[in-house]
Amino acid sequence: MNYQQFISPETQFYQLSEPFALESREVLSGVQVAYRTWGTLNAARDNAVLVCHALTGSADVDRWWEPLLGSGRSLDIDLDFIICSNILGSCYGTTGATSIDPKTGTSYGSTFPRITIRDMVRLQAVLLEGLQVRSLKFVIGGSLGGMQVLEWAILYPEKVSAIAIIAASGCHSAWCIGLSEAQRQAIYADPNWQNGSYSRQPAQGLATARMMAMSLYRSWASFSDRFGRQTDEATFEIVNYLRHQGQKFVDRFDANTYITLTHAMDSHDIAHHADYNVVLKRIHQPALIVAISSDGLYPPIEQEELATLIPNATLAWLQSTHGHDAFLMDMTALNNLVVQFRDSLQPSESMHCFSAAPF
Amino acid sequence: MNYQQFISPETQFYQLSEPFALESREVLSGVQVAYRTWGTLNAARDNAVLVCHALTGSADVDRWWEPLLGSGRSLDIDLDFIICSNILGSCYGTTGATSIDPKTGTSYGSTFPRITIRDMVRLQAVLLEGLQVRSLKFVIGGSLGGMQVLEWAILYPEKVSAIAIIAASGCHSAWCIGLSEAQRQAIYADPNWQNGSYSRQPAQGLATARMMAMSLYRSWASFSDRFGRQTDEATFEIVNYLRHQGQKFVDRFDANTYITLTHAMDSHDIAHHADYNVVLKRIHQPALIVAISSDGLYPPIEQEELATLIPNATLAWLQSTHGHDAFLMDMTALNNLVVQFRDSLQPSESMHCFSAAPF
Repeated sequence: MNYQQFISPETQFYQLSEPFALESREVLSGVQVAYRTWGTLNAARDNAVLVCHALTGSADVDRWWEPLLGSGRSLDIDLDFIICSNILGSCYGTTGATSIDPKTGTSYGSTFPRITIRDMVRLQAVLLEGLQVRSLKFVIGGSLGGMQVLEWAILYPEKVSAIAIIAASGCHSAWCIGLSEAQRQAIYADPNWQNGSYSRQPAQGLATARMMAMSLYRSWASFSDRFGRQTDEATFEIVNYLRHQGQKFVDRFDANTYITLTHAMDSHDIAHHADYNVVLKRIHQPALIVAISSDGLYPPIEQEELATLIPNATLAWLQSTHGHDAFLMDMTALNNLVVQFRDSLQPSESMHCFSAAPF
Repeated sequence: MNYQQFISPETQFYQLSEPFALESREVLSGVQVAYRTWGTLNAARDNAVLVCHALTGSADVDRWWEPLLGSGRSLDIDLDFIICSNILGSCYGTTGATSIDPKTGTSYGSTFPRITIRDMVRLQAVLLEGLQVRSLKFVIGGSLGGMQVLEWAILYPEKVSAIAIIAASGCHSAWCIGLSEAQRQAIYADPNWQNGSYSRQPAQGLATARMMAMSLYRSWASFSDRFGRQTDEATFEIVNYLRHQGQKFVDRFDANTYITLTHAMDSHDIAHHADYNVVLKRIHQPALIVAISSDGLYPPIEQEELATLIPNATLAWLQSTHGHDAFLMDMTALNNLVVQFRDSLQPSESMHCFSAAPF
């Protein structure tokens, strides 16, 4: 499938001049990053705000976080230079499984290497260096986006003035890993999967994975309120809804990409063989940690842990019945939390003297 | 596969002499019920206790609820006559998709009709009539078993003196229906599925469904405590665990049976086109409703609702980190709750004058 159709015309592309080395020590050549920006980078080049997207997202913040983007909002296009890039391994313009491997001339497919959250963040840093961004006023993201934010705080402590982490954890739980694996197995069960070397999408497997995920992103209350036991002819509305969501997803996302990115999420562990608590305690930036009251996938206990261990953290609650997806649904409330946080930041905190070291 | 190997030698079989009509108006001929008993039916034939098993269980209470079975326990084999039958549609001795359809001489497979919880309960009533059981001191079950208990109270109000419902609801939620459908879709995605007319199990699809279910039966805390992020070589222990559980399940359960029984669960709604609240308010028996604090599949809000609406109900909490499966894991605590409940029952409540009407 041609994923170009999903890349908005405003998207810009950054070509890496150097090979990009992964944590696994594998090296990718000819890497491209798709990104979008809003607002203007100031002369001091220090008014940038980085947005990190979630699993199946893209650089198009205006498509999935529109209520947070605009004048006077969390992502204030009058004051700040907002940047979002499609993550490494995705299929919306940045190098991933659907890209052409320059070594073979055909798409990577299942040969695309295992990547980590840290790899995604390091690639974003290369982009920011290319754009000559000097420092980041804050980095923000939910779910997989929040994992990237944590890695930003740890990898580039002097470049990042503040962080906002929504519905994420310091390491991927056994719970999330198990549920991810079940989704991958649904893809593997599809006869079109062909061990990843498919010519046609393993559509039924991928749709099944999405149906599982879409359920887990929501909650008992969310589904009860919206669907209850209503039927259309003999089929429950919730079943029609999930089947529709599964089909829609197959039409816009790639199975190898889903495998790559869910493995990357499973690899998430900010400890990286160091002491987990010590690593979190070293984060010095003001940190907003948003917990969603009904999140069953990244439950509040995970954000409470982050807020306890990160010294300069504020825990904020997004009260919602919608489950994990509340960060993409209850956006007005979320915007208010983030605006309050950014208003609380001292100007000085956004004007640290950064070292001249590149990202 | 021959499921005979999983049927314990103590199992007895009851053959229906008459055809068995389903709620759907389809009629099954030559129906057989596999059942087990413990203790002795007294002369008055009124000391029977019926145990209803969950989705993948069997009549072998001593295999899956052993800590509740025995002298002085919830299921007191000194005082009571304990009965458990394999449910209609299962593959452990009672007629189901793996049974021979007398009309064709081959196994039903995917032609086995849609059944309901009420069908299961009505078949149990036929068995009890055959055994000349006069009344039931109580009916008890967890999960799908608890759904059957509710139907027992509603269908045979004069035969049942008390009920104990664990981790179940008055109707299957959109949440559970959605998660069930995703599991069924994993089976449908398997090339061996063949629309249910398989000669070899759709093993990968069924294993995937089980992996998903096994996760949902547990909890974030349960998996975190037991597995965390431990790995064996490069594979997370939780992944090894779930793969193993998936494989084990394929070796002991049938895919069409899984489809049949999950659809039956989805059909669960004690209202049956009447007013839900009114139906629950009509239940007159003393009722123990056990909620599991960490149950994410049948969350406590469902048991709180039952306990609020059933007039003579007691809500008891099984405090556990294990999730829905706590009713099969924290069995000593569960046994204590049930023993307390049965001790609270007035002897008169177990000695109602029942009508002579057959079950």
